[in-house]
Amino acid sequence: MDNIRYDRQANELYIVDQSLLPNEEKEIRLQSADEMYDAIKLLKVRGAPAIGICAAYCICVLAREIDIDDGKSFLNELKRLAGYLNSSRPTAVNLSWALKRMTETAESNIFSGKDKVCELLCDEARAIHDEDIEMCRSISKYGLSLVKDGDGILTHCNAGPLATSRYGTALGPILLGSERGMKFRVFADETRPLLQGARLTSYELYKAGVDVTLICDNMANTVMKNGWIDAVFVGCDRIAANGDFANKIGTCAVAILAKYYGIPVYTLGPTSTIDLNCKTGADIVIEERDPDEIKTKFYEKPMAPEGVKCFNPAFDVTDHSLVAGIVTQKGICRPPYTESLAKLFE
Amino acid sequence: MDNIRYDRQANELYIVDQSLLPNEEKEIRLQSADEMYDAIKLLKVRGAPAIGICAAYCICVLAREIDIDDGKSFLNELKRLAGYLNSSRPTAVNLSWALKRMTETAESNIFSGKDKVCELLCDEARAIHDEDIEMCRSISKYGLSLVKDGDGILTHCNAGPLATSRYGTALGPILLGSERGMKFRVFADETRPLLQGARLTSYELYKAGVDVTLICDNMANTVMKNGWIDAVFVGCDRIAANGDFANKIGTCAVAILAKYYGIPVYTLGPTSTIDLNCKTGADIVIEERDPDEIKTKFYEKPMAPEGVKCFNPAFDVTDHSLVAGIVTQKGICRPPYTESLAKLFE
Repeated sequence: MDNIRYDRQANELYIVDQSLLPNEEKEIRLQSADEMYDAIKLLKVRGAPAIGICAAYCICVLAREIDIDDGKSFLNELKRLAGYLNSSRPTAVNLSWALKRMTETAESNIFSGKDKVCELLCDEARAIHDEDIEMCRSISKYGLSLVKDGDGILTHCNAGPLATSRYGTALGPILLGSERGMKFRVFADETRPLLQGARLTSYELYKAGVDVTLICDNMANTVMKNGWIDAVFVGCDRIAANGDFANKIGTCAVAILAKYYGIPVYTLGPTSTIDLNCKTGADIVIEERDPDEIKTKFYEKPMAPEGVKCFNPAFDVTDHSLVAGIVTQKGICRPPYTESLAKLFE
Repeated sequence: MDNIRYDRQANELYIVDQSLLPNEEKEIRLQSADEMYDAIKLLKVRGAPAIGICAAYCICVLAREIDIDDGKSFLNELKRLAGYLNSSRPTAVNLSWALKRMTETAESNIFSGKDKVCELLCDEARAIHDEDIEMCRSISKYGLSLVKDGDGILTHCNAGPLATSRYGTALGPILLGSERGMKFRVFADETRPLLQGARLTSYELYKAGVDVTLICDNMANTVMKNGWIDAVFVGCDRIAANGDFANKIGTCAVAILAKYYGIPVYTLGPTSTIDLNCKTGADIVIEERDPDEIKTKFYEKPMAPEGVKCFNPAFDVTDHSLVAGIVTQKGICRPPYTESLAKLFE
């Protein structure tokens, strides 16, 4: 089952509702802008690249439903819808990146007429999707060069096929290596509060036949100390020009622990995740989410008294000094990142 | 409501079932050795000092029920029961320490007759309890000298009144300071997988009117990085001669993060937690618990596929090099711990 599926002829968009995994594998259809906004906001679709792909297809669906013939008004309405979708999650750069590609496509071709513009939007969304598949394959190949058969690998959150397309990013080298007969021993942090590591990573790796062991986030130290980990692979939601990167909450702690034990940390992501306008991690806005995700979500009963406050940042920023390499589809960047990342865009 | 309550006249032992908190405040009675074993094993009573106190009262209850008049046979039966209770949790030294005090009391007075021995056992259990109250007060006073009004304090797991008696150990300085009108800003790690930080620490501090904020374990890094934390207070289950100490899983990670950010880490516990026969942390046996605690416990639905393996160590060992001070009822030990800890027992 593909995580995102667009039927161009029928103009129908379906996603696997990731919030129901691993207990239920269910496709849902996204028709209205509100459904799309909620799907992103409520993590039914998640993972920076998958959000970008999904948002692009959302624009296809919505554009074909806009009942305006005047080019300028059509474009304004399309931009309004894109702005609305863009506001669903502030941290993932792929969302605004994909939406910008889509609105620019419309803008450049607005004199070709609505039908032609809609065709071009569908081409553009499919291109974003295909490019992502190709990127994941390339990232996986580069990542695979960093580990060897039998290695122990720790991963945090989920940057697998569900979060992207095909191989994924952080899980890409593992899945590609497994296809080639290599054996890894993978430890997946459960990744509180939304448990993407338990619900998605352990699910994806287990289904692919990989030797995966689930741990609580606070057990990563023990598996590192025990000498079971040779490399840490994590995804990224935004990479600053100096190599600082935002990823799921807890990533920075994993990187500090890995540094303490002398284990290399690699972040894997497409170049679209790199934001050279963002000088350092200090410029990255961190989304703060509902306290109930900590106290009540998934549980049979509340786990803390009602009046107790929570602090629930969704991401953290890992300092570039903690990172051994940034793996992109164009190759592996090494420190100093200000130079190696800039070179990717020359 | 006291966490452990023994009615000497009726020979009835009651504990607050901590596994039901914070949603239900319920006392349960412990009558049989099996109920006692389960109460410790299943964390209905938890926290090293509380386990010791509870186990001592368990011996009172059981001794008075032993229907044997012959001194030697009575003692053998008492030792068998103590051994059984001792096998319920291997890591907490207070359990074996308290049981040893009780069986030695019986052994030293075995010629005084069964009734007298039972009286002396009750005195001994009460003494263990009273000593703990006095110890907690003293630990709290010493701990309070390490922080100032307005400080931010991070704590992991639960070492409060429920885990001990009265003030507790790690929470003692906070509760004592609050009584004296001091204001602290406390961050409580939820402490997966059993959520003692959410269920017990946030509950105890909130009830005491302390400004407490609950976070997931993987958010400790963010609150430290934000400059919100001036000191880390944690409990301990066993302290080795060199200052390495075992505490709830995740403690070592917190200590490594604190070291990275230059924040002092203090572990607080009674001298009964110190085991000079244990040279270093490498000698401490770490209990491994049921994988279902990670995948299914507390949840409405399983959070990972059934076939996925889990690794669930209940404790970790924090290296003495990460610890700024060990706070006991006899004062604050500073590095080098091999000397300062030994001095406590001179």
